[in-house]
Amino acid sequence: MTETRIQPMQLVNQSIQEKADLFEYFYDQPGSLPGTLRVKTDAQPPEIVLIDYNEETATRIVLETPEECALYLDTESVSWVDVLGLGSEEILLRLGKVFNLHLLVLEDIVNVPQRPKVEDYDDHLVIITQMVMPKEKADGFYSEQVSFILGKHYLLTVQEEPQRDCFKPVRDRIRTAKGMIRKNNADYLAYALLDAIIDGFFPVLETYGERIEELEEEVVSNPTHQTLNKIYQLRRELLALRRAIWPQRDAINTLIRDGSHLISEEVRIYLRDCYDHAVQVMDMVETYRELSSGLMDVYMSSISNKMNEIMKLLTVISSIFIPLTFVAGIYGMNFNTEKSPWNMPELNWYLGYPLCLAFMGAIALGLVIFFWKRGWFENFSTIKKNNRFG
Amino acid sequence: MTETRIQPMQLVNQSIQEKADLFEYFYDQPGSLPGTLRVKTDAQPPEIVLIDYNEETATRIVLETPEECALYLDTESVSWVDVLGLGSEEILLRLGKVFNLHLLVLEDIVNVPQRPKVEDYDDHLVIITQMVMPKEKADGFYSEQVSFILGKHYLLTVQEEPQRDCFKPVRDRIRTAKGMIRKNNADYLAYALLDAIIDGFFPVLETYGERIEELEEEVVSNPTHQTLNKIYQLRRELLALRRAIWPQRDAINTLIRDGSHLISEEVRIYLRDCYDHAVQVMDMVETYRELSSGLMDVYMSSISNKMNEIMKLLTVISSIFIPLTFVAGIYGMNFNTEKSPWNMPELNWYLGYPLCLAFMGAIALGLVIFFWKRGWFENFSTIKKNNRFG
Amino acid sequence: MTETRIQPMQLVNQSIQEKADLFEYFYDQPGSLPGTLRVKTDAQPPEIVLIDYNEETATRIVLETPEECALYLDTESVSWVDVLGLGSEEILLRLGKVFNLHLLVLEDIVNVPQRPKVEDYDDHLVIITQMVMPKEKADGFYSEQVSFILGKHYLLTVQEEPQRDCFKPVRDRIRTAKGMIRKNNADYLAYALLDAIIDGFFPVLETYGERIEELEEEVVSNPTHQTLNKIYQLRRELLALRRAIWPQRDAINTLIRDGSHLISEEVRIYLRDCYDHAVQVMDMVETYRELSSGLMDVYMSSISNKMNEIMKLLTVISSIFIPLTFVAGIYGMNFNTEKSPWNMPELNWYLGYPLCLAFMGAIALGLVIFFWKRGWFENFSTIKKNNRFG
Amino acid sequence: MTETRIQPMQLVNQSIQEKADLFEYFYDQPGSLPGTLRVKTDAQPPEIVLIDYNEETATRIVLETPEECALYLDTESVSWVDVLGLGSEEILLRLGKVFNLHLLVLEDIVNVPQRPKVEDYDDHLVIITQMVMPKEKADGFYSEQVSFILGKHYLLTVQEEPQRDCFKPVRDRIRTAKGMIRKNNADYLAYALLDAIIDGFFPVLETYGERIEELEEEVVSNPTHQTLNKIYQLRRELLALRRAIWPQRDAINTLIRDGSHLISEEVRIYLRDCYDHAVQVMDMVETYRELSSGLMDVYMSSISNKMNEIMKLLTVISSIFIPLTFVAGIYGMNFNTEKSPWNMPELNWYLGYPLCLAFMGAIALGLVIFFWKRGWFENFSTIKKNNRFG
Amino acid sequence: MTETRIQPMQLVNQSIQEKADLFEYFYDQPGSLPGTLRVKTDAQPPEIVLIDYNEETATRIVLETPEECALYLDTESVSWVDVLGLGSEEILLRLGKVFNLHLLVLEDIVNVPQRPKVEDYDDHLVIITQMVMPKEKADGFYSEQVSFILGKHYLLTVQEEPQRDCFKPVRDRIRTAKGMIRKNNADYLAYALLDAIIDGFFPVLETYGERIEELEEEVVSNPTHQTLNKIYQLRRELLALRRAIWPQRDAINTLIRDGSHLISEEVRIYLRDCYDHAVQVMDMVETYRELSSGLMDVYMSSISNKMNEIMKLLTVISSIFIPLTFVAGIYGMNFNTEKSPWNMPELNWYLGYPLCLAFMGAIALGLVIFFWKRGWFENFSTIKKNNRFG
Repeated sequence: MTETRIQPMQLVNQSIQEKADLFEYFYDQPGSLPGTLRVKTDAQPPEIVLIDYNEETATRIVLETPEECALYLDTESVSWVDVLGLGSEEILLRLGKVFNLHLLVLEDIVNVPQRPKVEDYDDHLVIITQMVMPKEKADGFYSEQVSFILGKHYLLTVQEEPQRDCFKPVRDRIRTAKGMIRKNNADYLAYALLDAIIDGFFPVLETYGERIEELEEEVVSNPTHQTLNKIYQLRRELLALRRAIWPQRDAINTLIRDGSHLISEEVRIYLRDCYDHAVQVMDMVETYRELSSGLMDVYMSSISNKMNEIMKLLTVISSIFIPLTFVAGIYGMNFNTEKSPWNMPELNWYLGYPLCLAFMGAIALGLVIFFWKRGWFENFSTIKKNNRFG
Repeated sequence: MTETRIQPMQLVNQSIQEKADLFEYFYDQPGSLPGTLRVKTDAQPPEIVLIDYNEETATRIVLETPEECALYLDTESVSWVDVLGLGSEEILLRLGKVFNLHLLVLEDIVNVPQRPKVEDYDDHLVIITQMVMPKEKADGFYSEQVSFILGKHYLLTVQEEPQRDCFKPVRDRIRTAKGMIRKNNADYLAYALLDAIIDGFFPVLETYGERIEELEEEVVSNPTHQTLNKIYQLRRELLALRRAIWPQRDAINTLIRDGSHLISEEVRIYLRDCYDHAVQVMDMVETYRELSSGLMDVYMSSISNKMNEIMKLLTVISSIFIPLTFVAGIYGMNFNTEKSPWNMPELNWYLGYPLCLAFMGAIALGLVIFFWKRGWFENFSTIKKNNRFG
Repeated sequence: MTETRIQPMQLVNQSIQEKADLFEYFYDQPGSLPGTLRVKTDAQPPEIVLIDYNEETATRIVLETPEECALYLDTESVSWVDVLGLGSEEILLRLGKVFNLHLLVLEDIVNVPQRPKVEDYDDHLVIITQMVMPKEKADGFYSEQVSFILGKHYLLTVQEEPQRDCFKPVRDRIRTAKGMIRKNNADYLAYALLDAIIDGFFPVLETYGERIEELEEEVVSNPTHQTLNKIYQLRRELLALRRAIWPQRDAINTLIRDGSHLISEEVRIYLRDCYDHAVQVMDMVETYRELSSGLMDVYMSSISNKMNEIMKLLTVISSIFIPLTFVAGIYGMNFNTEKSPWNMPELNWYLGYPLCLAFMGAIALGLVIFFWKRGWFENFSTIKKNNRFG
Repeated sequence: MTETRIQPMQLVNQSIQEKADLFEYFYDQPGSLPGTLRVKTDAQPPEIVLIDYNEETATRIVLETPEECALYLDTESVSWVDVLGLGSEEILLRLGKVFNLHLLVLEDIVNVPQRPKVEDYDDHLVIITQMVMPKEKADGFYSEQVSFILGKHYLLTVQEEPQRDCFKPVRDRIRTAKGMIRKNNADYLAYALLDAIIDGFFPVLETYGERIEELEEEVVSNPTHQTLNKIYQLRRELLALRRAIWPQRDAINTLIRDGSHLISEEVRIYLRDCYDHAVQVMDMVETYRELSSGLMDVYMSSISNKMNEIMKLLTVISSIFIPLTFVAGIYGMNFNTEKSPWNMPELNWYLGYPLCLAFMGAIALGLVIFFWKRGWFENFSTIKKNNRFG
Repeated sequence: MTETRIQPMQLVNQSIQEKADLFEYFYDQPGSLPGTLRVKTDAQPPEIVLIDYNEETATRIVLETPEECALYLDTESVSWVDVLGLGSEEILLRLGKVFNLHLLVLEDIVNVPQRPKVEDYDDHLVIITQMVMPKEKADGFYSEQVSFILGKHYLLTVQEEPQRDCFKPVRDRIRTAKGMIRKNNADYLAYALLDAIIDGFFPVLETYGERIEELEEEVVSNPTHQTLNKIYQLRRELLALRRAIWPQRDAINTLIRDGSHLISEEVRIYLRDCYDHAVQVMDMVETYRELSSGLMDVYMSSISNKMNEIMKLLTVISSIFIPLTFVAGIYGMNFNTEKSPWNMPELNWYLGYPLCLAFMGAIALGLVIFFWKRGWFENFSTIKKNNRFG
């Protein structure tokens, strides 16, 4: 039986290990050259997708080499260069040359994950963000860095993971010319993608809302060792989520406040809306964190409550049977009734035994009534309920 | 018996589910078009009520179409357009056109709930607020978004829920020309409504004050599993209340500080008063939150105290009867008294049995005195009291 | 016996109810007319006392009507109009007219309690304060609102409660021309009264210092259910005290910083001293709050310690007597000694019984030594001590 | 035995009482005249020591009257007037006249303790500080107010306690012309003394470091009721220490930032160093506070751990002997073996008794192995260890 | 057996003692001369290494005397004077003269550890930093002060410990002319070293990440007294780590913000990157601190859970056997069956004994089913699992 039980235990530990990634930062070997790029050698080379559009047309081209971008960057049409994956140091270095990126910027783009931030290099803005997506079949969320390089008429985005992103609706809007995106410049595109990233936190938050609700029920009805574990995991993940959204909010605020000439007044209004959403996300994360630490208190109290119930059961049973056993012990004594009329004459009474049983019954009844009046039995049904119907 | 018991349990869980709404924010599908309106399709179309007044007269008209407003907006008289409900996307879009609203503003109005805030669009101010009202027959409060669009001579208010609001006294003051409302412009009207919304928090707070007092009694006199649950619910709801009032206070502060030309100096003085009330509400919410977390500590200690009482009862009963049972066990031994005068001669004594009983009685009495002197019995009356009269 | 016990319980709950007042704010019916005055109808009409003084003379007159003040306000001598009680709406409205008060100011004065604050109306300053006084025979403190209207040569003070105030020493100083009060203007008088109010917090704090010391002893020597209650009450009242002093400190700071022409440089120096005292009060309140939350921790640990002692007693008694009872049980078995020499031959030994008792004694002694060496018995004396001498 | 035990208890309470002084502030009778001096009537009159020095010479004179100072104040040489004790109101008032002190300043100097602060009166700076010194033979620290009046060429220091100070090294440096003190003005002297006061916190902190280390050992190896008490005391004293250093840091910062003409640029650099030390002290105090609150958690857990051990012992003994006693009880039943071959034939078996004993032994062994495998016995050695070697 | 057990105990305490160093600050004897250097007399004299380089060449010279530096300081090439160790007061004083250091700066360099900070002395910048390195074979980290004096063309670094530093990669880059270091001035060198120091925190953090993961497993699967100890140690060390990184971040921020002419715009960009890393480190430390305090909660709950399991075991065993023993006690009574047919006729029944055993078996079975249904037995396997496989 124990074999089958080991499974969930391992599962738990495994999920701890997996979660631990949430707290990793990229860091160089101390003292290493600034601008050193670390590329996972087994990764595929990045795909470079260019979407070039103006009010009339929109074309999508998969580029072979980074240098092909150069042709599009200075035209009036908006060029969105979307780099999927960080798999090749050479290509990334060439990209850096095409877009005229500072070595440190390239480092921030490649050596993921970095803390979200905004940096202004006169002719382009650098925006580092974290995109989160809920996992389909498990608790927790995927997190991936997306870096933006925003120029006058172009936007370069570099994604850590080639498989996933939440930009599809934006691509559709460009293709179908829905909304104002085709009529606006690259800064509006950057806003649209940022907005998609921030709004991407909400589905993740929703899963946490559901998990908290489940835990609220579990902690009240049937608190087990696993519950404790789940609450701790929840706090851990919310901590990671907070670390992702906090600097992001500050970054958007910097975009709005610091008057970079690359962002128009109109887009600044849109960013204000995006900022509001970021504040809402933070609000929710903080609220969930407070709830989860409240859950820990409730858990502790529930455990103590359960202990009380167990102790009551022990006390009731001991209190009833220990005195009865003592009475039985009395009449089990071997005082010689023949030596003296004072020695246990009850043993020779005609109704000695029935009277003795009746006496014991009376004691037991008295104690049961004593406990009943104090409401101790009500709680036993609670124990039962908690374990069966909770 | 368990059947009837399941009921309150479900009730608890149900009330958890209901409370969960307090933590919902509206959010778009990530990446969706900014300005997309989400309208509950099964809702009734909104009713549009126009109250137009100046110092001499006041008329109330129910409008058929949003475009009818246009006639009133530029007149010198104050026009209050009150839209009840968010049921029709078309009507809301037409409203947006009449009032010249930015798409994002319309989104904030329709896609409820949003975080309270103030935004200044030169020719009109946008104020997003949360109105709360106590539930009549249950714990908790209703919460609904009310959006204000304040222009030179008009005020547009859009309410999420058509059934409820706390604006009746303001309407009465307009109708009966009580106070200064008819002599003032639309900014005073906006103040009057904001003030009604902020003052609407006080009755809600009052219900929390009462619940805390009840819990204080319960936690001291009869702490049960339900008590724990109630404290947790309380903390939850106070968290939601705090999230409603905090941004509202900031919004009013913005109104006072940022010198929008739409708000006169005189009304700014009134808003300062309204701001003071918002600060008072926040003060109270924080105080209640501290009290409720203090209650959790008291609950924990009460549970531990109860455990101590239970343990004492068990210890007293065990300590008295276990030694007595041992003595009875001694004289239940079958050593052969005939083989030796040393073998349990007591059994053959003339007064063996009475002496034995007396000895047992002495032991019991000694132990009872021992416990009595240490004050252990006082507490049993507490257990009893707690469960019967608390 | 239970009857007499119910009394203290009710007392506790009653004192909870009384304390609840500490958290009440005045609030209007939501949406009601700004400037609506709420007057307790059963209260006596306020007494209006005028003290008019300059360097040479000082006169004290009880005024019949508020309008009589008008004669004194514009003279060079300082006029202190002291209104005792809030009992008549009519008189208060007339006062408002005489002193040219904004309707909202009058509302703040009458609809007590309000949050302490300072407001500058060019020709007069409005200062709302809370005066606290220790209760004579009970825990806790009285709290009453005192509103100041400071003009060029006059000071209007309105007190919530006619019976109590801490202004007597100031009145004496005016009467006897002690100190500089008679040589200074109305701003110095306002300072002197404010200083009396702030210094009035110290005696209240002192009572809390004493209560904390008592609780420190109680929690260590004899923690009971009542102790828990007292700690909670303490935290509650300190919370209320903090709410009274915090805004007051901010208000005094505003007086010093914002250069109202009604306050001279010299008085600003005095107010700085008063501000220092307010900071000291806050310091103390925060310190007491930290101590009281530390007390809660100590209480919890004391309860756990007590539980350990109880458990030890149970364990010692059970561990000693349960094995002995088992041994007695062995020799209570009825194996037929006649059927076999292997069947309990001890029963027929000459020294069977004494040897058996000796064996039991040895077991008991061994266990007692075992527990003694581990120091378990030391603690029992603690239990005893705690309940008798603590 | 209890008599001797009461002693440490009283000791504890006594030390609580003594510590309570740490939280006292001076306060006037509410409403009393500003500038009222409270002098302990039984104190000795203060000694006034003048140290007058320039680069060439340094003389030390004990003055009879405060007025003698006047001769030295305007000379070019630096005059340090050191007043030891606050014993005479008259002398202090005369001092105030000589140094031209505001009545409120004199009050701050005399009515100790005041909150540390800096005040700028054009021709002199007032600096209120708290000097701490470790107690020689007990836990805790002495605390005394030292007030500085810094003029162009003079420094007046007033010490609360005549017996103790940490200025001896500074006096020695003046006497022996070591360092730059004789080449500098009064502001450097003030710095040197301030620095001595701030550095005086470090030896006090060191004693706390040692106490925390001792408690860390005690809490892990042998947590008793006294440990709890000690942790609470520690938190209390650290709270007092924090209250002494916080405002002091702010005061030094004010000295550096606010450009009083009495402090030269060179001395400002030295004060920056002194400020760094104050920040270090605060850092340490906060660290110790966090450690001590961590200790409380560890204590709580240790107590729970101990309870687990006690419970395990009880459970092991009960679990082993209760079933055995039951078996013995079975064979103590009096079923009549003669009436039926089914009635307890074991009693008449040849090896009945040995087999029965063997059966009991097997049960006991099985249970011991059961508990042994679960590692329960390992912990008993911990209980033992904790109490003997911890 | 106890002997071998004492070892780990001592180990623990020893490691506590060692950790205590983390909280030491250097402090002077209160009142001592500013600028007094404290040199450990048994330390070796410091080695002075000069690395002089420009774009073309780089030479490394070990200097005999500090004065030899003087030749290099004013040349155009960058001179890095690296002083290893603080062993000789004389050499350090001579260094101070060569580099024209203020006495207080020299004190900060020599009297380690000081709080990290930046000070601007016009012709040179002083930067005090803390370098941390993970211990190879034990928990915890080494910490050492490194002081920077940055001039126009030179950088003086003084290291507390001669054996260890993390500057080797930087030295290699200078030697091999890798990257831009040889093309840049001394400010870039200072940045490169600072960056190495900040990046040096990451490997330390990584060890903490691993320890937290281990503790997460241990606290869930097998919480012992040692676990508690480890969590406390972890919190302690994280506290020390926080104290090292916080002021460092502020110092770097000061370098970026305050426009010292010694730091070029280009290097300021690099410092911004370094600042980002410092923020990341702080982020991680705070996250780990939150996790470790969450671990303490989980530990507490785990202990309570374990207690519940122990209590359940005791309750199950007691509840089953105590009633059975009572039944056996009944039939052990000696009522005289011959005196009356009512006196225990069961004893004489033909199937008395088997029926009695069956009755007992039924009771036991009923109770087992009772507990089984409530899920009590599931948990016993948990106890077992926790101790064997966890």
